[in-house]
Amino acid sequence: MTTLAMIEAAAARLKGHARRTPLLSSPFLDEIAGRRLFVKAECLQHTGSFKFRGGWAALSALDPDLRKRGVIAYSSGNHAQGVAAAAKAHGAPSVIVMPADAPRLKIDNTRALGAEVVLYDRAAGESREAAAAPLVESRGLTLIKPYDEPEVIAGQGTTGLEIAEQAAEQGVTQGDVLVCCGGGGLTSGIALALQDRAPGLRVRPAEPEGFDDVARSQASGRIESNAAPTGSICDAILTLAPGEITWPILSRLCGPGLTITDTEAQHAMALAFQRLKIVLEPGGAAALAAALFHGDQIEGDAMIAVATGGNVDRDTFVEALSRFS
Amino acid sequence: MTTLAMIEAAAARLKGHARRTPLLSSPFLDEIAGRRLFVKAECLQHTGSFKFRGGWAALSALDPDLRKRGVIAYSSGNHAQGVAAAAKAHGAPSVIVMPADAPRLKIDNTRALGAEVVLYDRAAGESREAAAAPLVESRGLTLIKPYDEPEVIAGQGTTGLEIAEQAAEQGVTQGDVLVCCGGGGLTSGIALALQDRAPGLRVRPAEPEGFDDVARSQASGRIESNAAPTGSICDAILTLAPGEITWPILSRLCGPGLTITDTEAQHAMALAFQRLKIVLEPGGAAALAAALFHGDQIEGDAMIAVATGGNVDRDTFVEALSRFS
Repeated sequence: MTTLAMIEAAAARLKGHARRTPLLSSPFLDEIAGRRLFVKAECLQHTGSFKFRGGWAALSALDPDLRKRGVIAYSSGNHAQGVAAAAKAHGAPSVIVMPADAPRLKIDNTRALGAEVVLYDRAAGESREAAAAPLVESRGLTLIKPYDEPEVIAGQGTTGLEIAEQAAEQGVTQGDVLVCCGGGGLTSGIALALQDRAPGLRVRPAEPEGFDDVARSQASGRIESNAAPTGSICDAILTLAPGEITWPILSRLCGPGLTITDTEAQHAMALAFQRLKIVLEPGGAAALAAALFHGDQIEGDAMIAVATGGNVDRDTFVEALSRFS
Repeated sequence: MTTLAMIEAAAARLKGHARRTPLLSSPFLDEIAGRRLFVKAECLQHTGSFKFRGGWAALSALDPDLRKRGVIAYSSGNHAQGVAAAAKAHGAPSVIVMPADAPRLKIDNTRALGAEVVLYDRAAGESREAAAAPLVESRGLTLIKPYDEPEVIAGQGTTGLEIAEQAAEQGVTQGDVLVCCGGGGLTSGIALALQDRAPGLRVRPAEPEGFDDVARSQASGRIESNAAPTGSICDAILTLAPGEITWPILSRLCGPGLTITDTEAQHAMALAFQRLKIVLEPGGAAALAAALFHGDQIEGDAMIAVATGGNVDRDTFVEALSRFS
């Protein structure tokens, strides 16, 4: 179980390696949101998403002998790049199991970061766990799960420590922190950090319509799953259900989840381009979309949206700009 | 004459108002550049460019009675937005004189930031100074020049204080700092700051082909002018000649200027999108383009490119992506 002490220890190991990403804002976005809106720009993290934090935290916590044999991860792309880059920096080999339909840029980047990439077909019903298992056994690799892993949650939680500090610098101690939510590693890590460091800031998961497993789980009080594995442009956060480790944390600490459409994600991408000068992928824009377009479900006069990643193909990005800017 | 003490005083006045923008990097860009390359992302500054620093420094240094009457500025856009936002925050009225062919987004933003915008036709040979002069007299406005003004140079120089700190954090004490250069306010301000704080870092101005007035002035030893006022997509840095105040500083402290093509600026914009997740305008990508594509003119094993602005129209941005990513 991840604790605040583990998050603090992860922050110490990450110091000088992960970036302290900026908290951005624009009067034009404040106007749309109808209140003060800050954006934690994790798209500017190494490898283009917050996942580098969890990858580094897990690699750096590993027994050196195990680390030497190598690690394996399965991921739609951002966890892959985060683990690959962290493994390379630690001198450890890495194998990444990725869906064959992941954005080309993510597959190419993962290979270029030194990882061996193994593809599987999620549309045909293949599971990433099944693809990974034989490699774990035959090579003695350590599996680094994308979210249901205490050290990974601790690494993502370092984002929450920074949010607490940066919000305080802006005079914000009350409000909602919106987080793009897949399996819940980042969301639960931030919630754990804020519980202690900024108890007036409440985490709200943001998910795509039709893939709102966390919001529905919150409503029913037990783990609910999505009907399909794919079908939204928000590929980075399409996870079937909250994790067994992340769910109890989400359930205990988060406010109600918010649901956004693919069109709203595109609109948020275009506004982030125009007003913040950052590049967001659709799944990385979900929280900003919730902040901009679902303010009716948000109380208080300040919001912080975590912009979780920017690994987007050119065509997907241009389409968003074409529709909205 | 701007001094280090003035830059430090400006930094104190800017504290809590300007952003300390991050120093970004990517192994993919290092590979292209053939050495360590860092990017100071001033596109993430308030109003989307470093100009907010100079605007704030000038407004905050002004006598309160003069400030109350208001300020006026002429600008192709980024200085306009910087002054308008700084004036609004100081409760001072602002009038901005802009070329009628400036990017629409810049004109709209300047108005939305509370300024009164007066347009002039630079293609027809009208001068911005001539358009500004009667307003200065009739309303008692204080002119805030875009670069040839000691407090503005001091404000831009605060970027250099941050670069010195951030480079040291990365273990970089020797190398070239490439700066997109128009009239030379930012370039001279950074050079003054680094002279004292990081004397191993040398400033190199970067300019568009055909608008390399600073590089040619450096070669001849006296102020040289460009043949034409427009004709490059790098609109933010098309200045006819170095300033009378900036030139002696540039001449004394900078290494030889570098010249880039519009195509190279577009290529740098596409790479910044893909690898750094930031949005750059063409003129804001000149230094990065010089770092990536003119390494043969650069010594040492580390470079820092200042990415000066991100206020770009959608179509200009999409064209760059279409050609290069």
